[in-house]
Amino acid sequence: MPRPRPLSGFPEFLPSQRAVELAVIDSLRATFELHGYASIETRSVEPLDELLRKGDTSNEVYVLRRLHADADDADAGVGLHFDLTVPLARYVLEHAGKLQFPFRRYQIQRCWRGERPQEGRYREFTQADIDIIGRDELPRDADAEVTTVMAEALSRLPLPPVTLAINSRKLIEGFYLGIGAPDPQAVITIVDRLDKVPAEQVKQQLISDAGLDDEQADQCLRLASISARDNSFVAQVRALGVQHDLLDTGLDELSAVIEGCGSVRSDRFEVEASLSLARGLDYYTGTVFEIYMVGFEFLKSVGGGGRYDALASDGKNTYPGVGMSFGISRSLVPLMSRGLLTADRKVSSVVLVALTDEESRGAGDAVATTLRANGVPCEVAVSAQKFGKQIRYAERRGIPFVWFTDAGGGHEVKDIRSGEQVAADPATWAPPSEDLRPRVVSTSSTPRSTSETEINQ
Amino acid sequence: MPRPRPLSGFPEFLPSQRAVELAVIDSLRATFELHGYASIETRSVEPLDELLRKGDTSNEVYVLRRLHADADDADAGVGLHFDLTVPLARYVLEHAGKLQFPFRRYQIQRCWRGERPQEGRYREFTQADIDIIGRDELPRDADAEVTTVMAEALSRLPLPPVTLAINSRKLIEGFYLGIGAPDPQAVITIVDRLDKVPAEQVKQQLISDAGLDDEQADQCLRLASISARDNSFVAQVRALGVQHDLLDTGLDELSAVIEGCGSVRSDRFEVEASLSLARGLDYYTGTVFEIYMVGFEFLKSVGGGGRYDALASDGKNTYPGVGMSFGISRSLVPLMSRGLLTADRKVSSVVLVALTDEESRGAGDAVATTLRANGVPCEVAVSAQKFGKQIRYAERRGIPFVWFTDAGGGHEVKDIRSGEQVAADPATWAPPSEDLRPRVVSTSSTPRSTSETEINQ
Repeated sequence: MPRPRPLSGFPEFLPSQRAVELAVIDSLRATFELHGYASIETRSVEPLDELLRKGDTSNEVYVLRRLHADADDADAGVGLHFDLTVPLARYVLEHAGKLQFPFRRYQIQRCWRGERPQEGRYREFTQADIDIIGRDELPRDADAEVTTVMAEALSRLPLPPVTLAINSRKLIEGFYLGIGAPDPQAVITIVDRLDKVPAEQVKQQLISDAGLDDEQADQCLRLASISARDNSFVAQVRALGVQHDLLDTGLDELSAVIEGCGSVRSDRFEVEASLSLARGLDYYTGTVFEIYMVGFEFLKSVGGGGRYDALASDGKNTYPGVGMSFGISRSLVPLMSRGLLTADRKVSSVVLVALTDEESRGAGDAVATTLRANGVPCEVAVSAQKFGKQIRYAERRGIPFVWFTDAGGGHEVKDIRSGEQVAADPATWAPPSEDLRPRVVSTSSTPRSTSETEINQ
Repeated sequence: MPRPRPLSGFPEFLPSQRAVELAVIDSLRATFELHGYASIETRSVEPLDELLRKGDTSNEVYVLRRLHADADDADAGVGLHFDLTVPLARYVLEHAGKLQFPFRRYQIQRCWRGERPQEGRYREFTQADIDIIGRDELPRDADAEVTTVMAEALSRLPLPPVTLAINSRKLIEGFYLGIGAPDPQAVITIVDRLDKVPAEQVKQQLISDAGLDDEQADQCLRLASISARDNSFVAQVRALGVQHDLLDTGLDELSAVIEGCGSVRSDRFEVEASLSLARGLDYYTGTVFEIYMVGFEFLKSVGGGGRYDALASDGKNTYPGVGMSFGISRSLVPLMSRGLLTADRKVSSVVLVALTDEESRGAGDAVATTLRANGVPCEVAVSAQKFGKQIRYAERRGIPFVWFTDAGGGHEVKDIRSGEQVAADPATWAPPSEDLRPRVVSTSSTPRSTSETEINQ
């Protein structure tokens, strides 16, 4: 068999990189659970018509077909989900009778999207979502809660600091109505291009495609230029002199969210009202979010979300919600392929139990069993080579400790990083707690990609 | 939107059931890591020609196609993996230069197989695999190691006891060669049907299709009837009077495995030499395993594996391995849909912080923040309803504790299961450690399926 070729857009981690991903997932889980969120996973497939109904992703859906399918197969016309929001809406409707509302759930799962692979955009990727879903009503506080929980979760990750940009669809829609725009949705779509297209060009499109006059277009650009890390944005908007009830509601709601998450600001997490933000998806009806990694803005957002007054509806009940998703692959793959993020070992073992000779294998196994009973991951040497070779075996894997047992039953353990070797009792010895699992090593400098860290993207 | 219909073969868990699955996955992970196994995940897709080359699953592969695919797309001709062995072989070859051998890995991931859905057989399912892969050589001990690790892992799960049936392909092939069978592989294929077809019919097929005479066929059936929980099978085989070098090797190897995992026998885990076992897949070359759940033998095996002298080869190196996989969905879905296995809550919160009135929300949030800082998952009541209603809110979710704060700043916590209410300090209070996560509740009786536990299969 020739050496297999990587598949573009389907990144895959080496064991030390996977250790980082697992540490990130465990940390996210822990924070979500501290806030009472329940884990769910959904099936990977949804009916094609459901997938195609949402948003602008119809080109990107992967359709599934059994190699020898019958025409009337139950799974004809299904595709892989491209996000975790469409499946959540379906899950809530399907299981509504067995769920408790407000329903707080987290979901960390793979998604598939057939878009052109590039750094930060993959055809198979893992993302972490949290949402709060109400039945018929959902308190306003939920927006700030979701922000706070995600802020706490992201602050604890071994990543660069993140910025959460927040806006309110009501605020901008109210503003566009207030200036007399004939089609606010058209304005939103055009203003959303400000990060790709020069302002002057956006202005021309507002005039030609959204039916605005010169002054109305300028007002839209003035609004979009406002950003602030506190509620000073309110006065800036008021200074533009536009009046509309929906604008007032939007200003109030956005202020409440910015205030509500004041406690989570730190040097690892910044919140910013950003009035150019719109997010194209038309199911958002209130607060909208985008997450950026500081220093990695070229990746565009590594997460986002918002409020939807009707995630789903079954005629009898409507399910409003607010949620946010974080792109695990989108943030980790670029960091790891640059060598900025790795783990200090390739195996889970903390200890290699060395063998003096093949006859001592039974004694070695007994040491390992005792260590494991105390929760210490370990492995026994494959063969009784010279100690130097056994130590190099540990070094190559990043195993920090080597255990020696002498013929008289005495035990010593060596930290091969420092060279320190001390007497130890297998029944009581434990490594420093930070050595129990692979340590995540993150650097803020930019080493070049090496063959060791390279990831097929 | 009408209520969505479940998709046959794609089971999905309610939050309390997912809590059980998560507990099972966490427990498996912990055991695998104690033995030094590294986690990996592979991409979900493999080239179609790789998938079709292996075994008898060509009818069951799901092919992927982008809705608007270009003819020369990089991901044309890929399908979803149907197990974790084919991807492991490809992963080892692709990344061999960056892996350390022997390579111990565990992999807990979804697979897809388009077979007819029935209880225990799903179109989308999660399985947990461990394997040890060597480069050019792999010590014999590896077979017993894999058995021991899987035994430890399964013994710790909240499942019925399991039996591991073991055989050796060398033993049966050597035996068939020893009696002069012209085509040992044909004999293996026919004897493998003994669990579905009456012995007399198998005998006739051995004569008509595998070219055996009456006495040779009887000898094959006598061998297949041997099973033992210790090495007494050796004497039983010897008593049949057949001689062959490969038979001797097989007897030695199987004895070593049975002896090597003697330490893991318990009332939760039994090991049995079972000489009728063959496993159809032709890449197994030595030890073969099947896992059965006691009382659920009608599910057939819930796991299996074996030794392969050449999992993969790139011309320069050959990679022998031994591994075992356990079907998480295959075992959990039947238990949960019978109501034999569930969790005692639907959310991760241990505590509901009750509110006296809306003005006390700030104080409630402060209690919650303090509890979370001590690692106690909790949530604050959605609104300041009557305490009775807030307690019922907790009851419906299975949250065991409700926290009350009075106007003077005094705190009390109530265990709503016992009714006991005591004074408590949010800075130091902690629940019993077994309440920190949802408790798995397993019953050995057979309650009928209820609408609450029902799972679409």
